[in-house]
Amino acid sequence: MSYESASRNDAELRVLAGNLLAGLRQTPRRIHVITNAAAQALTANLLLAAGAVPSLTVSPDEAPAFTARSAALVINLGTLDAERRASIPWSIATARQQHLPWVLDPVFVEASPQRLTLARLCLAGKPTVLRCNAAEFSALAGAEPGPDAVRSFAREHGVVVALTGPTDLVTDGLRTAMIANGDALMTRVTAMGCAGTSLLAAFAALHADAFEAAAAALLTIGISGEIAAAKADGPGTFQAAFLDALYNVRPSDIIEHARLT
Amino acid sequence: MSYESASRNDAELRVLAGNLLAGLRQTPRRIHVITNAAAQALTANLLLAAGAVPSLTVSPDEAPAFTARSAALVINLGTLDAERRASIPWSIATARQQHLPWVLDPVFVEASPQRLTLARLCLAGKPTVLRCNAAEFSALAGAEPGPDAVRSFAREHGVVVALTGPTDLVTDGLRTAMIANGDALMTRVTAMGCAGTSLLAAFAALHADAFEAAAAALLTIGISGEIAAAKADGPGTFQAAFLDALYNVRPSDIIEHARLT
Amino acid sequence: MSYESASRNDAELRVLAGNLLAGLRQTPRRIHVITNAAAQALTANLLLAAGAVPSLTVSPDEAPAFTARSAALVINLGTLDAERRASIPWSIATARQQHLPWVLDPVFVEASPQRLTLARLCLAGKPTVLRCNAAEFSALAGAEPGPDAVRSFAREHGVVVALTGPTDLVTDGLRTAMIANGDALMTRVTAMGCAGTSLLAAFAALHADAFEAAAAALLTIGISGEIAAAKADGPGTFQAAFLDALYNVRPSDIIEHARLT
Repeated sequence: MSYESASRNDAELRVLAGNLLAGLRQTPRRIHVITNAAAQALTANLLLAAGAVPSLTVSPDEAPAFTARSAALVINLGTLDAERRASIPWSIATARQQHLPWVLDPVFVEASPQRLTLARLCLAGKPTVLRCNAAEFSALAGAEPGPDAVRSFAREHGVVVALTGPTDLVTDGLRTAMIANGDALMTRVTAMGCAGTSLLAAFAALHADAFEAAAAALLTIGISGEIAAAKADGPGTFQAAFLDALYNVRPSDIIEHARLT
Repeated sequence: MSYESASRNDAELRVLAGNLLAGLRQTPRRIHVITNAAAQALTANLLLAAGAVPSLTVSPDEAPAFTARSAALVINLGTLDAERRASIPWSIATARQQHLPWVLDPVFVEASPQRLTLARLCLAGKPTVLRCNAAEFSALAGAEPGPDAVRSFAREHGVVVALTGPTDLVTDGLRTAMIANGDALMTRVTAMGCAGTSLLAAFAALHADAFEAAAAALLTIGISGEIAAAKADGPGTFQAAFLDALYNVRPSDIIEHARLT
Repeated sequence: MSYESASRNDAELRVLAGNLLAGLRQTPRRIHVITNAAAQALTANLLLAAGAVPSLTVSPDEAPAFTARSAALVINLGTLDAERRASIPWSIATARQQHLPWVLDPVFVEASPQRLTLARLCLAGKPTVLRCNAAEFSALAGAEPGPDAVRSFAREHGVVVALTGPTDLVTDGLRTAMIANGDALMTRVTAMGCAGTSLLAAFAALHADAFEAAAAALLTIGISGEIAAAKADGPGTFQAAFLDALYNVRPSDIIEHARLT
């Protein structure tokens, strides 16, 4: 990651990532996650490995109560059934009422017109962070996902954008971070991206600067992925090794392995 | 585990746990489980590793038929959506009509007033075993989870209570077992507790004394967790190692490793 | 596998399986899967390990759009809730309109009269492949699952039947393949069969002869299972090892290890 011509901040970000991880391990925060069916178990396991306490209910009768007792909210639009559709707006409203950070992950928004419409309504509710890949960004923004377009989108919507890919780009419209950590095996495990989004929410619960929190979380995920890939024989053992790596990674590992470009 | 001043029974319980596990491996029983979305796959895998045959449908049109052909039923109140809410009372009614043992796991009942109301209605349906943690017990009972309060609750509701924590407490109101087996990594894998509940149901299907069946199941789970923790590098590899351990654990391992306090 | 007295074709099938796997790895195909809750993550992970791109939404508002952009469709009748029931017929209609291959997996159809009725309606929609076990076949066909009965059923319904068990039988009513690969640990991991079904769909998307595609897929699954079993200590490590094996298996491994009887 690099701030625009501000290499001093790169060093600060490495330290911050380790501090946030240590802080989460020391004082677990509750994170409520409305996410797709394939991501639920992995997301919960990722949060537990990082020291947080997940809850996952998608029922409109219950999700607001679970959100209200949490420190942050994740809204992931995958497997968007009737219960999820009904509970998402009330959970977002609860997060806003309680001044909680919340993160939007518009999974596969390019594949379904209905989902795109709902994603835009969610975006109008001012998420703290929008986490998406290139195809999802293009569908939402109606523009190619170049750095300028992403920064412009972030400014226009008042949101931190965390655009993930071979190199992650995080921006609040003014500052930009580029993170080159990670491993290709992460794309061969379902819901790795969705699960990783939950760490953005957990870090945003600990640190008010959402741009820094998002970048620190992606740094932590990417480095854990690299540690895991070195031990794995394929995507099956990678998933277990990733949770182990996130559980065991030390702040000094993050400082050492960060690749901010 | 210790019966109150009856150390002879401790030895019997160790033997019973091994016998029930051997019996389940020899003659698989069907267990129907209505559980939360994050627990479904792990629960099914735990039952398969132990030798049972799981089914998981939550549809109100189908869950009673699946329950009727099973040897026991598990009701877990996590991710309590409309389908689950509709199918739970009919499935409980089926279990009662067929005289099947059933186990109630009131997950996160302290977090949602609606769920607490439903949990109390479920409790009025006389589960064979109530499996809960301290926070869930407190919400249900309106009392601190001390041994006397738990025994009193068990007598009042005519239910075996299996209160899990660093030391598990199992009681039918008259007899009490305390089980110190287990490992802290079990709390870092989502739905380990929920999945473990299903073994209580499977053992209750084999053994009419639900107090003994519940204690034997928690002993088996805890010892499998210890065996797994010795092989794991973190929560990711722990989950796989736990299923392996449960699949491979011998009755003699249970006799040897049981810590009844 | 053996064609009836046509051992030449056995050799061709081994080669075909490797070619289809190589083709899928080179040009990923999208596969849409409506499947049961316990199978969703493993199915997605199996497809990703094989080189395909899964999507899993069960919402009737979205599943047809996801199907329309896919190369094949899987319909699995497990955990058949209201959303799944509503989305299945429209997704099948989309597959037919787009001339996509689709595979029906009538899980536990023997356990629920409602599910049996729906499975027969699905079958009337002319799936490309019906994948089932012996109990499911018996319920659907009202007959014992002997080779003649299966061939007769395949001819009558104009469907390739892939009947899985200790030895898999694949037939289009004229040709028959028998595959003896696999390992008993595969039956101790929930949804291994359901997840494997998705590879039949992926191969059918690449290869117009659905009989050959189905047999090649079961061969690939069975051999990956054997490779995994040699590394696993039980069902927990088996699941991860299986995904690794499928990710790493070479066409030459398939040629070498195929057991066509």
